[in-house]
Amino acid sequence: MSAAPSLRIVVIGAGGHAKVVIEAVRAQGGEVVGLIDPSPATSSVLGVQILGSDDVLQDLRCQGIDTAVVALGDNPLRERLGRRIRELGFVLPNVVHPSALLSPSARLGSGIVVMARAVVGSETAISDLAIINTAAIIDHDNEIGVAAHVAPGCALAGNVRVGARALIGVGSAVRPGTRIGADTVVGAGSAVVADVPDRATVGGVPARQLRQGHKV
Amino acid sequence: MSAAPSLRIVVIGAGGHAKVVIEAVRAQGGEVVGLIDPSPATSSVLGVQILGSDDVLQDLRCQGIDTAVVALGDNPLRERLGRRIRELGFVLPNVVHPSALLSPSARLGSGIVVMARAVVGSETAISDLAIINTAAIIDHDNEIGVAAHVAPGCALAGNVRVGARALIGVGSAVRPGTRIGADTVVGAGSAVVADVPDRATVGGVPARQLRQGHKV
Amino acid sequence: MSAAPSLRIVVIGAGGHAKVVIEAVRAQGGEVVGLIDPSPATSSVLGVQILGSDDVLQDLRCQGIDTAVVALGDNPLRERLGRRIRELGFVLPNVVHPSALLSPSARLGSGIVVMARAVVGSETAISDLAIINTAAIIDHDNEIGVAAHVAPGCALAGNVRVGARALIGVGSAVRPGTRIGADTVVGAGSAVVADVPDRATVGGVPARQLRQGHKV
Repeated sequence: MSAAPSLRIVVIGAGGHAKVVIEAVRAQGGEVVGLIDPSPATSSVLGVQILGSDDVLQDLRCQGIDTAVVALGDNPLRERLGRRIRELGFVLPNVVHPSALLSPSARLGSGIVVMARAVVGSETAISDLAIINTAAIIDHDNEIGVAAHVAPGCALAGNVRVGARALIGVGSAVRPGTRIGADTVVGAGSAVVADVPDRATVGGVPARQLRQGHKV
Repeated sequence: MSAAPSLRIVVIGAGGHAKVVIEAVRAQGGEVVGLIDPSPATSSVLGVQILGSDDVLQDLRCQGIDTAVVALGDNPLRERLGRRIRELGFVLPNVVHPSALLSPSARLGSGIVVMARAVVGSETAISDLAIINTAAIIDHDNEIGVAAHVAPGCALAGNVRVGARALIGVGSAVRPGTRIGADTVVGAGSAVVADVPDRATVGGVPARQLRQGHKV
Repeated sequence: MSAAPSLRIVVIGAGGHAKVVIEAVRAQGGEVVGLIDPSPATSSVLGVQILGSDDVLQDLRCQGIDTAVVALGDNPLRERLGRRIRELGFVLPNVVHPSALLSPSARLGSGIVVMARAVVGSETAISDLAIINTAAIIDHDNEIGVAAHVAPGCALAGNVRVGARALIGVGSAVRPGTRIGADTVVGAGSAVVADVPDRATVGGVPARQLRQGHKV
């Protein structure tokens, strides 16, 4: 697991997810010095000012701010921006809410967000830029791919593999040993009981492949 | 958020829900001095005596008991009794189990019960007399209506609105941005992925409108 | 509830479930001195050596190890081995992860495992050798049968009865007052809203009886 974030952090994003990230950073004892959003709907979020677009990042770097969190729900975009922001010389720490529970044998990459009350089990590996959202349960021996998002209240049983940029919708359940491909979408409240191929959109109990554009 | 309940509390109700409320009050350091139930099935619950019907409330008020919790699962009844008990001069505090997690930016009315391990997210507002039951997750920017009941293990994503007296059944999931009307019933284990009109009964994954009397 | 496990424990099983049990024992301050597995896939798990088959139990007993945990996911097998290991003179303690939350009025048998972040409610009774898995919610007045397994992330409402050796699959929900028979299987992510007879396999929202061999 990477080191705890330094005290002063810039957050990329200013929407609802950024809001939860700001409070998780504060709960860890960190300070969010500003938000980055090219077309913000407001001037501040939870008392943190929106500083402008990515253009200001170089300035922040010169002012000694070298730590950033990408707080965007869009998985491919988060992955892209994460890479770019590292290239600008920023460190991407893991933000882990103090009420989350990480097994001593879990392994975390960097740029990961683990929200309040989430549980990460024994010998589970979480890749860079993944979101383990509020109270999501990732049991033993899981592998969660780069920039995947496990939404609030999901329960992943043992030996589950989730591909890069997959979105597991709110309150979903995944059976032991299941493989969920890259760039998949699992609808809210689904139960994944069989492997899901890359780029598929599935939903229901048990989850079945849906045609594109179906509301999940 | 209203102040912590005073030490001595009367609980309206003597069923299973009252049982969980009694233990939440005790976990907060409070004492339940008696229960109100006009036709009780037993004489005491968890060592607390059932004192009789609402008639005894005036007496209790004279004895200096001025704090009450309405511990009834029936949403319209809880709303009605809550109003009446306030008129009798009682304060309705919030009962928040110490293991629940409330965002510093969450806003609570009064007469609310938040059970063990529930999570209330950033800038979420909970209205009077709502029940946020055991380990229910209410993420950021939710609005939970008066006397609504979010049952154990539910997961509500961001920007969800739940109307007055709605019942979200055990283990249900709600997609980001969904509006659930007043006086609705969402069946157990459902996934609400589209707006639900007032007074509807819905169920399933995804949730669909059910005819009245359907078991949910 | 039986006494906390003594410091030195032998664990029967060496699979994924054993892994989570080892970490729960350690979190309680206990030490796992070895694992029992007749045909192990590896020589150690989380640094704990696999000692061989049941034959070594007598030896361990002579060395003063008198405490064992049966960490097998197979419910009938766990029940059988639990009985046999008691006959060999071992004590079967309850393993309760320190982050689990047990109501002061809950009643536990012995040989039970309660994983991280599980909640056991008021006046709920858990029978011998049951597994209450990660973050499972067992609300008030439940009765969980011998060697039943409530999988991660399940939410059982009040007054639920679960029969012996039943398996409630990951992320399932159970409506208040429901009876689930012995030796049943409830598929992942199901919602049980009506009673389930003994030996049935059910799944879906709402859960319906499935033919045998159906993937749940």
